[in-house]
Amino acid sequence: MSYNTFGTMFRVTTWGESHGPAIGCVIDGAPPLMPLSEADIQPFLDRRRPGQSRFTTQRQEPDHVQILSGVFEGQTTGTPIALLIENVDQRSRDYSSIADQFRPGHADLTYIWKYGIRDPRGGGRSSARETAMRVAAGAIARKVLGNSIKIRGALIQLGTQSIDRARFDWNQTEQNAFFCPDAIAAASWAEQLDAVRKAGSSIGAIVEIIAEGVPPGLGAPVYGKLDADLASAMMSINAVKGVELGDGFATAGLRGEQNADEMRMNSNGSVHFLSNHAGGVLGGISTGQPIIVRFAVKPTSSLLTPLRTVDASGTDVEIKTTGRHDPCVGIRAVPVGEAMMACVLADHLLRHRAQCGVRPITPVLPSKD
Amino acid sequence: MSYNTFGTMFRVTTWGESHGPAIGCVIDGAPPLMPLSEADIQPFLDRRRPGQSRFTTQRQEPDHVQILSGVFEGQTTGTPIALLIENVDQRSRDYSSIADQFRPGHADLTYIWKYGIRDPRGGGRSSARETAMRVAAGAIARKVLGNSIKIRGALIQLGTQSIDRARFDWNQTEQNAFFCPDAIAAASWAEQLDAVRKAGSSIGAIVEIIAEGVPPGLGAPVYGKLDADLASAMMSINAVKGVELGDGFATAGLRGEQNADEMRMNSNGSVHFLSNHAGGVLGGISTGQPIIVRFAVKPTSSLLTPLRTVDASGTDVEIKTTGRHDPCVGIRAVPVGEAMMACVLADHLLRHRAQCGVRPITPVLPSKD
Amino acid sequence: MSYNTFGTMFRVTTWGESHGPAIGCVIDGAPPLMPLSEADIQPFLDRRRPGQSRFTTQRQEPDHVQILSGVFEGQTTGTPIALLIENVDQRSRDYSSIADQFRPGHADLTYIWKYGIRDPRGGGRSSARETAMRVAAGAIARKVLGNSIKIRGALIQLGTQSIDRARFDWNQTEQNAFFCPDAIAAASWAEQLDAVRKAGSSIGAIVEIIAEGVPPGLGAPVYGKLDADLASAMMSINAVKGVELGDGFATAGLRGEQNADEMRMNSNGSVHFLSNHAGGVLGGISTGQPIIVRFAVKPTSSLLTPLRTVDASGTDVEIKTTGRHDPCVGIRAVPVGEAMMACVLADHLLRHRAQCGVRPITPVLPSKD
Amino acid sequence: MSYNTFGTMFRVTTWGESHGPAIGCVIDGAPPLMPLSEADIQPFLDRRRPGQSRFTTQRQEPDHVQILSGVFEGQTTGTPIALLIENVDQRSRDYSSIADQFRPGHADLTYIWKYGIRDPRGGGRSSARETAMRVAAGAIARKVLGNSIKIRGALIQLGTQSIDRARFDWNQTEQNAFFCPDAIAAASWAEQLDAVRKAGSSIGAIVEIIAEGVPPGLGAPVYGKLDADLASAMMSINAVKGVELGDGFATAGLRGEQNADEMRMNSNGSVHFLSNHAGGVLGGISTGQPIIVRFAVKPTSSLLTPLRTVDASGTDVEIKTTGRHDPCVGIRAVPVGEAMMACVLADHLLRHRAQCGVRPITPVLPSKD
Repeated sequence: MSYNTFGTMFRVTTWGESHGPAIGCVIDGAPPLMPLSEADIQPFLDRRRPGQSRFTTQRQEPDHVQILSGVFEGQTTGTPIALLIENVDQRSRDYSSIADQFRPGHADLTYIWKYGIRDPRGGGRSSARETAMRVAAGAIARKVLGNSIKIRGALIQLGTQSIDRARFDWNQTEQNAFFCPDAIAAASWAEQLDAVRKAGSSIGAIVEIIAEGVPPGLGAPVYGKLDADLASAMMSINAVKGVELGDGFATAGLRGEQNADEMRMNSNGSVHFLSNHAGGVLGGISTGQPIIVRFAVKPTSSLLTPLRTVDASGTDVEIKTTGRHDPCVGIRAVPVGEAMMACVLADHLLRHRAQCGVRPITPVLPSKD
Repeated sequence: MSYNTFGTMFRVTTWGESHGPAIGCVIDGAPPLMPLSEADIQPFLDRRRPGQSRFTTQRQEPDHVQILSGVFEGQTTGTPIALLIENVDQRSRDYSSIADQFRPGHADLTYIWKYGIRDPRGGGRSSARETAMRVAAGAIARKVLGNSIKIRGALIQLGTQSIDRARFDWNQTEQNAFFCPDAIAAASWAEQLDAVRKAGSSIGAIVEIIAEGVPPGLGAPVYGKLDADLASAMMSINAVKGVELGDGFATAGLRGEQNADEMRMNSNGSVHFLSNHAGGVLGGISTGQPIIVRFAVKPTSSLLTPLRTVDASGTDVEIKTTGRHDPCVGIRAVPVGEAMMACVLADHLLRHRAQCGVRPITPVLPSKD
Repeated sequence: MSYNTFGTMFRVTTWGESHGPAIGCVIDGAPPLMPLSEADIQPFLDRRRPGQSRFTTQRQEPDHVQILSGVFEGQTTGTPIALLIENVDQRSRDYSSIADQFRPGHADLTYIWKYGIRDPRGGGRSSARETAMRVAAGAIARKVLGNSIKIRGALIQLGTQSIDRARFDWNQTEQNAFFCPDAIAAASWAEQLDAVRKAGSSIGAIVEIIAEGVPPGLGAPVYGKLDADLASAMMSINAVKGVELGDGFATAGLRGEQNADEMRMNSNGSVHFLSNHAGGVLGGISTGQPIIVRFAVKPTSSLLTPLRTVDASGTDVEIKTTGRHDPCVGIRAVPVGEAMMACVLADHLLRHRAQCGVRPITPVLPSKD
Repeated sequence: MSYNTFGTMFRVTTWGESHGPAIGCVIDGAPPLMPLSEADIQPFLDRRRPGQSRFTTQRQEPDHVQILSGVFEGQTTGTPIALLIENVDQRSRDYSSIADQFRPGHADLTYIWKYGIRDPRGGGRSSARETAMRVAAGAIARKVLGNSIKIRGALIQLGTQSIDRARFDWNQTEQNAFFCPDAIAAASWAEQLDAVRKAGSSIGAIVEIIAEGVPPGLGAPVYGKLDADLASAMMSINAVKGVELGDGFATAGLRGEQNADEMRMNSNGSVHFLSNHAGGVLGGISTGQPIIVRFAVKPTSSLLTPLRTVDASGTDVEIKTTGRHDPCVGIRAVPVGEAMMACVLADHLLRHRAQCGVRPITPVLPSKD
């Protein structure tokens, strides 16, 4: 079965193909009385929009979002919010040449094996175009979370080049085409990615998303764990092959003493963690510390280099993908990852309120830092 | 809200605390007419059972499973299957000394912050004891999958020591206490873990689970992706901090050409992939290749070394955990990871059958190798 | 929380308000490879469309449906199908006069109490306009069910006037403005409803929906019962206050012998039921007999007669509803009820296939009559 | 697929067969910190327990409930609550004589057609024995609702004999074997049911459940309607064939003026409804008035009178059911209906809190009467 919905209380359903007339989503369960207009959503879409630098696909999509329901006189009404974006630059050229060939690394063949049919125009439903609606939903999720929760993302590795953590500066992420927090790395990446792009190749990346100000207590044992839902949300983004929280895979190499997040009382009666190896989640429940998620994005599979594949007639062929594509799809995954973080947290905020209501936190308070 | 259920069609609900009278689960949606008895489940529980070597907790639990419903004269009836395991060695000693202290790295404090209450006896619901029921459910999931799908797991890294892939031998995994496929690594690990254990410390690990014989077409766009569900399933296991498929995080450092799984026709008309960087999933749908999942397990947080923490009165204290614990909880996570793989695949097998029925795979066939 | 989705495998999510720019729905989980175009859906919408006789609201809506996704070259692809209908005749006149008054029998006040806000234009989300999307979804559900399952509905009571069962003729339902299967009753109802309409009043009705050709085995114990899902589906239609299956409330007055559906073998080895008091469902599972559901629709609450109510300032006022309304909303509920039957059956057909696959029915066959 | 779970936030999963070793349920999502012990649940089970008068089945089951998880030192912990009742009087006599015959009006044949197998001992999963767990879950749901919400049920019709509304007295429901609120009707029913019982026959009934003190705002458009969920909940009870809210089916015969629940301001600023035709729900959302649900229970299908049926070999046979059975299963459906009302309301209370939080009700208040 196809499941194009995620979330339990804050529920997002997306629809649409890369080259259909439009894409859209329905957000169900958003609280009423939140101020909301297209202007709250558009800036986030603009960050993800293609064609903004030479490092992303040259497809020109204004991604102009329309709210079709669920808002009255500038406020949410509690009923489903429908969003729609028209596809403008879908270039309805002849796609028959690739319709019968299965691009390696794409979902072409798996869709055929599952469904016996696929929409070959621009990747159809498997196109990263779908992620525009995740970003739109994320903008509404941020409204649910309120201003005290801040969610930001950065590209921390391009190919094999990592940033230097000592130079991490959130302001830098808005100064380059990579959402890179390290100005020096960004300059180096530009050079590298130019080479990749000109070679008709592509390259992988690692994205880090951090949510600050998340109250403790979100998430739940044992299959509604906050980290399990985050893992699912991030892994559902196109081309993602790995997800980790906090120290993630590195914890495998640690001793218990190295990994323990010890605690001490602050003078104001709150509890201060001395480290955050856990990435803000213990036992599936938020600790109040920053929630830190990283995910790996594989290199785009669309390449100018000919690759060996087969076609629908069962013949060995070679394929080159000449269309417009991102040389590093990881870049535009940054706002998508932020959006997924926002949606998961919004859902868990409402879920927590359902079961536990609004109760004073006792007996010791979490630290606000 | 608490969600102790996972799966859509093959649904598993678990309950129970470490030191309560019993733990159990309900499996809903299993097909009828499957031969099933306790003897089908017990061997998998025995693999996970504590106290089988000096490298796991010395708690003695026979983990004798009882089927309470859903089976008639040796066959499943299609109605819910209830399983129950009595807790035998829960040692109802005085736990008041730790009831008011929050162990670093445990869910003690997050449970309190979420619920305002916790069962402190042996970790209550957050104990890895819950995973016994996952293993039991996995045994039934294997029945759903049938014999042509083979699911196996191995510990491939203990601390910083990885296995040598050239020595990978599934038979070895049953010859040592670590589910280690590399006999030489296993010997080395025994030494290392003895040192860790004697020091009252703990250490992390990496587990790899491989499913072979999975038909293509399982999974679905875009939030019911097979890899997204696997990520969630593995991340929900206690102490897991990262999950990856196929080449996983390493894909970040690859060029598109390196990561592409090219294809060629076999002489019998089926399609052969020339590599499996994808780990058996493309676009969220299985390719028919082996499904390869790895996850990182952090070191157990229960240590003899005193750690700084706070207590319920808001006082700085030091804590030592003197109870019975696994020096490397990753070891017993191997059968648990296998079980989660089985449950996710069984669920997706039924979900696929719902939407797509049983249709001949066309126009090209997947390779059977 | 708001839940604007129903179904488990065949999932329908609707959105939109009476006087917003458009209404729409997303259908997720429909099988691939079904031929589908707007022409398959439009005829069902035309049956429900307002303004077709003097007995329904005079609002003029062409209800022209567009398919925005999920279909490629005339076939479903297995991905979500988005449908959209623009609101044309929403008459954006001044609604301030009624915005602050709570119409008796409407959801005006309950929406305010729940959400603190409501869209007062034409009833907003609570308008029966939403049912257009149910009808559209139902058209697709019929495709899932195939031609061997026939779903038809009729108005069997208008006010206190029932049809004469002896005159029941399905062909008649297309010959009058009431979907009435009894020509003589229809003539009488026209007279009665004219009087009601001219008096600015309204009247209730009873609708009967019958599904023939439904295979045995759909539905499941104990909270996924086919009749429980039908009850929920019908009760969710605007203005419905009661639902029954088979002999329904009349079974309360029966003795066991009178209510038993006895069985006999046919000469061809199939089982024949001698009656259908059960309405085609036993133990929550279909019997293969016709599934018979009836539901009561209350009289429209919009009346020219002044009614006592209060306004948002807490003042007693009298209210008359002068807008365009159905004097008997039960009439247009007939195609809506058919659609809900189709959606529930399609969902259960897929759910059954998930758990039980396609197995020969044994040891005795259901009768085909 | 089998779905033995209901509810979204307050989730109940039941398991077990009539003649298995035990029956049980898991309640997930109950708020933490609620005082709870077996003593809170047992009284409700005792009301439903068989064998308490000559008018119900003579099976002797103490229905002694055990809490196996989710409670620590007398308080709920927020983790799943597992309940278990051992089957004591299952009389494991030879059931082979009926195992191959399909009782009319039972689920014998539909289970076989669905699953290809059934547990014939005492009806297996389709036995009303399952409702014991509903009653147990309902006791916990009442805890969630708190003392200000009162849920009571009554049998208002036995066969064709209705109570006299003028004599309705809740106290009477505890004075007779029928939960009958009319002492005179109860006396008459005793006579009638004795005759039915002695004739080896059975008879239908109508049950009414009323919830008072329910806050306005519970429920949601358009498929999460409170009345739709109540309809589903009641219809899922064994032998129920019809459900209605408020005036229910009688509204079909009313004019709009007769059915309108007009409103007036109280002197204290709250809104008073002048009638409750709606049964406490408008637009799927509670009005604050009493919620009134009625459902029809068909006569038990187990009869001493021989009925025509077929057996598994495809032979016409006659069947008499000589086991222990309720001559009017509607009687014991009263506490079951109360429990389902409690569970649905608890679920919606939590769901409402999730989406809408705790907000002052404005601009006008509901009346408290």
